[in-house]
Amino acid sequence: MRAELVSVGTELLLGQIDDTNARWISERLAAVGVDVLRRHTVGDNLERIVDVLALAAADADAVLVTGGLGPTQDDLTRDAIASFAGLALVRDPELEEMLREKFRGFSARPMPESNLRQADVPAGARTILPDRGTAPGLIVDLASGTRVYAMPGVPDEMVEMMTGTILPELSARAGDGVIASRVLRITGIGESAVAEVLTDLFDGSVNPTVAYLASMGEVKVRLTAKAASATAADDLLRPVVEEVRGRLGDVVFTLDDASLEETVLELLRREGATIACAESLTGGSVAARIASVAGASAAFTGCVVAYAAEAKRDVLGVSQETIDGPGVVSEACAREMASGARRVFGADIGLATTGVAGPEPHGGHEPGTVWLAIDAATVSHTRGFRVTGERARVIRWSQQAALDLVRRYLDGRPLPVSDRTV
Amino acid sequence: MRAELVSVGTELLLGQIDDTNARWISERLAAVGVDVLRRHTVGDNLERIVDVLALAAADADAVLVTGGLGPTQDDLTRDAIASFAGLALVRDPELEEMLREKFRGFSARPMPESNLRQADVPAGARTILPDRGTAPGLIVDLASGTRVYAMPGVPDEMVEMMTGTILPELSARAGDGVIASRVLRITGIGESAVAEVLTDLFDGSVNPTVAYLASMGEVKVRLTAKAASATAADDLLRPVVEEVRGRLGDVVFTLDDASLEETVLELLRREGATIACAESLTGGSVAARIASVAGASAAFTGCVVAYAAEAKRDVLGVSQETIDGPGVVSEACAREMASGARRVFGADIGLATTGVAGPEPHGGHEPGTVWLAIDAATVSHTRGFRVTGERARVIRWSQQAALDLVRRYLDGRPLPVSDRTV
Repeated sequence: MRAELVSVGTELLLGQIDDTNARWISERLAAVGVDVLRRHTVGDNLERIVDVLALAAADADAVLVTGGLGPTQDDLTRDAIASFAGLALVRDPELEEMLREKFRGFSARPMPESNLRQADVPAGARTILPDRGTAPGLIVDLASGTRVYAMPGVPDEMVEMMTGTILPELSARAGDGVIASRVLRITGIGESAVAEVLTDLFDGSVNPTVAYLASMGEVKVRLTAKAASATAADDLLRPVVEEVRGRLGDVVFTLDDASLEETVLELLRREGATIACAESLTGGSVAARIASVAGASAAFTGCVVAYAAEAKRDVLGVSQETIDGPGVVSEACAREMASGARRVFGADIGLATTGVAGPEPHGGHEPGTVWLAIDAATVSHTRGFRVTGERARVIRWSQQAALDLVRRYLDGRPLPVSDRTV
Repeated sequence: MRAELVSVGTELLLGQIDDTNARWISERLAAVGVDVLRRHTVGDNLERIVDVLALAAADADAVLVTGGLGPTQDDLTRDAIASFAGLALVRDPELEEMLREKFRGFSARPMPESNLRQADVPAGARTILPDRGTAPGLIVDLASGTRVYAMPGVPDEMVEMMTGTILPELSARAGDGVIASRVLRITGIGESAVAEVLTDLFDGSVNPTVAYLASMGEVKVRLTAKAASATAADDLLRPVVEEVRGRLGDVVFTLDDASLEETVLELLRREGATIACAESLTGGSVAARIASVAGASAAFTGCVVAYAAEAKRDVLGVSQETIDGPGVVSEACAREMASGARRVFGADIGLATTGVAGPEPHGGHEPGTVWLAIDAATVSHTRGFRVTGERARVIRWSQQAALDLVRRYLDGRPLPVSDRTV
C-alpha cells in the first residue's frame, strides 16, 4: 500500500498555519503499514488542485486530501476531485437533510443556501458523515484503481474521519494483518536521552517498529506491531513495552498514551485523594489541564491563581516576611502557596508554581526561573530550576514538572530535587 | 516570481517531526512577494527526489530544497540535484578545507572521510558557506532558467542561509513588489455567517484577496495585497479592511491578528483597569489565556478556580441560599462568583464562568449549560447559553464568550443576552 497526501489551503502556502494534519496522518499511516511516498501542499486554486491530484494519484494506491471541504467559495476540493475523476458533482439529498438538521441544532437563523455546497458530491462517491463538524468526507475510486479520500482540514474533524473510517479501511487493504500500537509517554528527560537509551531497539526495529516523537516537554515512544491477530500483535508488543519501560524507568508515566493530567487524575482516584493548586507563573494552566479531563471534579477541588503579591498573601496566606524577604519568586513562597492551597480548598494535596514566565525579568530573577512545591500530610517538597526559551515554553515546562511532582508523589517515586535546566 | 518548496527526509513522511521549515520559508517568501505554488515532501530516495525536483521545477522560477545535505549515505540531495541538472558531482577543495577546519574545531578525532561527501557539488554550482553547521548550501541554475537552492534541514542552518543569501537574492529577483496582509478576527458568529456577509467581496477579490479560516470559536478573515511598495499595499488594504469591519460590525475584535486575550489586555491597559476571575466549568483556562500574554501581570490580579461548591462559598462568598436554591449552575451563582472574584482580588472587573462541561449532566443540568457574569462598578451582567459538543468544545466556547464579555464591556459595545446555542 502506497499513499500520497495532499494538503489544500492557500493559508498553508502563505505560511499562516502549520500543517499539523500532514504529520499526524503520516504517523498513523506508518503505524498501519502504509508507505507515504510524497506529500504535496497546494493553494485554493481549482486547476492547481487538479494537477496535484493527478501527480499524487500517478504512483499511489491511495491519495488522502485534507482541506477545501468547507462551505465557502474557496473550498474547491469537491470540485477538483470531480473534475479530476471526470465525474459530475451532484447534490446528495441525505447530506442536505443532515446539514439542515445540524444547522438547526446550533442556530435559530435559517441556513444560508450556500452551505448546501457541502452536500455536493462527485457522482457515485461514498461519503463519510461528520460527527463534530458539517463537512462530509468523500471516498472516490478512480478508473486507475487509486482511491481518493477527502477530509476536512479542521484537525478534530480530520482525526474523526481518519480514526473512524479511513485508517481501518486502509489497514484492511494493507493486508490481512492487524496493526496494534502502544504509546509510552515520558516526561523529565529529553528526546536525545531517550534515543540514546533505546538506540539498538530503534535501529533493529522491524516488528514491532519503534519510533520517537518529542513535543512540548514530553517524548512519546510508539511501538507498532503487525500480526495475524490482535492477540498475536499484543504478544509481539508486550516484551518490547516492558523492555522500554525497564530501560527508561520511572520517567515513563503511561504505557497507554494517557496524558500527564489523565495519569495524575487516575492516581488521585486510586488513592482517593483530592488536589488543589496555587499558581503564579503558570497562570491557571495547571488547573485548566486537570479540569480538561472528564470527571476531574471528583478529585480536583480548586485553584487560586495569585498573580499579585497581595493575592498570594491575602488569599493563600503567604507571609509578609516571605514577600519582603526572599520574595514571591522563592522556595519559601512556593512552599507557603502549596500549603495555602491545601488549606483554602480543604484538599489532601496542595501544588504550587511561582517564578518568572518572561520575557522580562521580575524582582531580580531571570525569565525561566521556576519554583514548585507540593504539600500533603506526608510530604513537603520544593523544586527549583531554570527553563530556557520563550514564555510559552517556560509555562509549559513548568506545568509538566508540577504535574509530574504529583504523579511521582502519588506513585511513590523519588521526587526530583532542584538544579536542572530544561 | 513563482517558487516551489521541496522538503527532503523520510522522517517527515513517517510523521516523526513537523516540517516547521516549510511554514517558515513560505511565510518569508510571501513577505518578499514570491508566490509559493506548491510544497512537496519526499523521502531519502534518489529517484523520488529527482522526480519531485522535476515537477517542482516545471512551473517555478525558483525551487527551494531543504534537507538531505548531511554527511550520511541517506543524504541524497546533492546527488539528486546533480542527476536532475545533468551535472557531474565534483569535490570542491575549498569546501574540503572548510570541513576539515570545522571538524578540528569540535573534535579531537580525525574526520571520517565519509564527511567529505559534503564537499561534493554539482559542477559549476555556487555554494553557501555554513556558519553554524557543516553542510554547505547549493545554488544551481538549470538550463530551463529555473534556479535551485538547497539548504540543510536543521532549522537554524536553514534560517541562516535563507536570511543571509537566498531571501535577499529572491527579493531582488522578485522585483520591487511587496505582499502585505491584514487579519481581522471575529468571535460570536460562525464562518458561514461571515461568508454570507462577505460573499461578493470574496468572489470579486483579486488584490487584495480575501480568505476565511475558522477555528475553535473564531473566524479569521485574511486580506492580502500585492503592490510596488509597502505603502501602496497598505493603501489597497485599508478600504477593504474598513469595508469588512463595517459589514461585520463589533463581532470583529481585532484588525491586526491579535488574539482575543491580547485584545482584552490591551483594552484593560487603555482603561487602566484590572481584572480577576472566578472559574468553574472553564477550570482556570480563562485565567491561563490571560496569563499567556506577556505583561499580563499589569492588569490581571488573579483567579479562583472553584470546582467544589464549598470553594464557591468559602473562597468566593457565594451564598448558601444560592447553592441550596438555584444551585451552582445558575445565573445567581455566576453573578455572586463574579462579584466575589472582584472583591477577593480587589480588581475593577470580576468575570465568572459556571456550568456543565460534560460529558455527564450535573445537578439536573445538561452538558453544555453555561452561565457567565461580569461585574464592575458600572455593570452587572449575566449571560446563559448552551454549547453543543464535547467537553473541550464547551470549555473553549465558554472561554471565548467570557473574554468577549470583557472586551465588549471595556469597548462600550452592547453585551449579548442569554439565549444562543453555539
